[in-house]
Amino acid sequence: MSILVVGSLAFDDIETPFGSSPDTLGGSSTYIALSASYFTSDINMVGVVGSDFTDEHFGLLHSRNINTNGIQKVEDGKTFRWAGRYHYDMNTRDTLDTQLNVFADFDPHVPAEYRSSEIVCLGNIDPELQIKVLDQITAPKMVICDTMNFWIEGKPEELKKTLERVDIFIINDSEARILSGDPNLVKSARIIRAMGPKILIIKKGEHGALLFTDNGIFAAPAYPLESIYDPTGAGDTFAGGFIGHLTRCGTITDLELRKGVLYGSAMASFCVEKFGTERLNGLDLLEIEDRYQSFLDLSRIDG
Amino acid sequence: MSILVVGSLAFDDIETPFGSSPDTLGGSSTYIALSASYFTSDINMVGVVGSDFTDEHFGLLHSRNINTNGIQKVEDGKTFRWAGRYHYDMNTRDTLDTQLNVFADFDPHVPAEYRSSEIVCLGNIDPELQIKVLDQITAPKMVICDTMNFWIEGKPEELKKTLERVDIFIINDSEARILSGDPNLVKSARIIRAMGPKILIIKKGEHGALLFTDNGIFAAPAYPLESIYDPTGAGDTFAGGFIGHLTRCGTITDLELRKGVLYGSAMASFCVEKFGTERLNGLDLLEIEDRYQSFLDLSRIDG
Repeated sequence: MSILVVGSLAFDDIETPFGSSPDTLGGSSTYIALSASYFTSDINMVGVVGSDFTDEHFGLLHSRNINTNGIQKVEDGKTFRWAGRYHYDMNTRDTLDTQLNVFADFDPHVPAEYRSSEIVCLGNIDPELQIKVLDQITAPKMVICDTMNFWIEGKPEELKKTLERVDIFIINDSEARILSGDPNLVKSARIIRAMGPKILIIKKGEHGALLFTDNGIFAAPAYPLESIYDPTGAGDTFAGGFIGHLTRCGTITDLELRKGVLYGSAMASFCVEKFGTERLNGLDLLEIEDRYQSFLDLSRIDG
Repeated sequence: MSILVVGSLAFDDIETPFGSSPDTLGGSSTYIALSASYFTSDINMVGVVGSDFTDEHFGLLHSRNINTNGIQKVEDGKTFRWAGRYHYDMNTRDTLDTQLNVFADFDPHVPAEYRSSEIVCLGNIDPELQIKVLDQITAPKMVICDTMNFWIEGKPEELKKTLERVDIFIINDSEARILSGDPNLVKSARIIRAMGPKILIIKKGEHGALLFTDNGIFAAPAYPLESIYDPTGAGDTFAGGFIGHLTRCGTITDLELRKGVLYGSAMASFCVEKFGTERLNGLDLLEIEDRYQSFLDLSRIDG
């Protein structure tokens, strides 16, 4: 099965207590696609970039077998830019600058050959654009969606229309509380799942993630990392690993969903070890399997 | 094996968004002993109360087969009192009032029949008193210790002397960061374990707990409760269930430590369902086993 990934491509200027990394390749769809590329080889991206997005950047995606035919390049424009600074504890950050650039007029066009995509992954973009993408897909089997508080607060009705068509929704804990209006995550999950997505993942950053399905709740731990250099993209990397695993195994059972959450967590734990997407470029399958095993060991109770 | 529990007995005035509960029986050793009483029947308390601690209160402890001969009753004094108010999210609280009363002059005296205790549980009290207790014990096999930021910041040297004699240290995440001086919990754990306790548990409130031993890290999830009425005593209740399980099985392997963390978590999840110790009074072993099983299910990955 092929995965269609729609979201942002960006250049980030990142500052953390450990250093800074200017002009770093980023964007939600970049992290999602790179992460998923370790699980499946049929990944198609739809997005928009400017002339500053060079062959070298495309080459990096191609080296991971990611199809970029759906990425529009606006020759007289500049790629979306984000600048942020992380605090000492790495859990909070300030956005220093956002330049939408070519992303301001992004009108997602899904190329004909992608319209039969079975798995559609809607990265964190305007929910109106998310719907535009879905309208172009013939018969999606699985729609995964991410969002952020900006859209929850700014376009709640449009987001709710999107959610009616979403199978798996990935959100973080503070966003879940805002969207549901309830501080309790169990109640939040019930309220949000009633909006459409039968499968809900609530990410809790350094505290792991919760998976809610009809069959109950799964609590995935976070990997207790000694060194976190840059949390940028960790959530998207999680989504990519999660979707990649589900695509690879081709079945959505509770067991595979749980494993998917751990694979997503494993990929996110790699992501934060270096700046930007750096760590996601040169992974090998064995170290991913090892990290997954470490996640299993973290919560193992053997009789 | 018998457990010696030393700590505070108190009356708490508790306010939460769900209501208030004045004159509620509390104190670290009360929660610890009540929780442990579901796992072992040989629990001895050492502490101090005033004349307002009536036969009814002693009766409640006796009904759980807890031996109270080591509790000094000061007839012309009043029991330690604490008043606090929890915020909307239940994760933060303000202390409204603290009256040490008879606790101000507490000089723990371990009765002769308790001095051969093999398991000593030092609740959150002045580290100088914790050492005084240890000096009275002949040959403890396992010393468990809790503390709080008040002592970490106020008596760091005394606390470090205590820790040299502690086998299992239980602390929350913010306290671990203060004590170690490092925001990263993995690094914090290494620093704290070098102070003495080979086994360290870092509690993360609604995010579960981490167990650090020579053999690695165990991450226990928190039970995703829909209704949390009162978090007071949850940490002490955790400690009681943890110690109770270890005492019951009589062996300290990594497996039993992990199970102990889940039993402690299960007991804490009951504690917060009602005000004060109310929920800890009428539990039965079957519902504890059921809750423990729910914790196992929360992180289960079956092949």
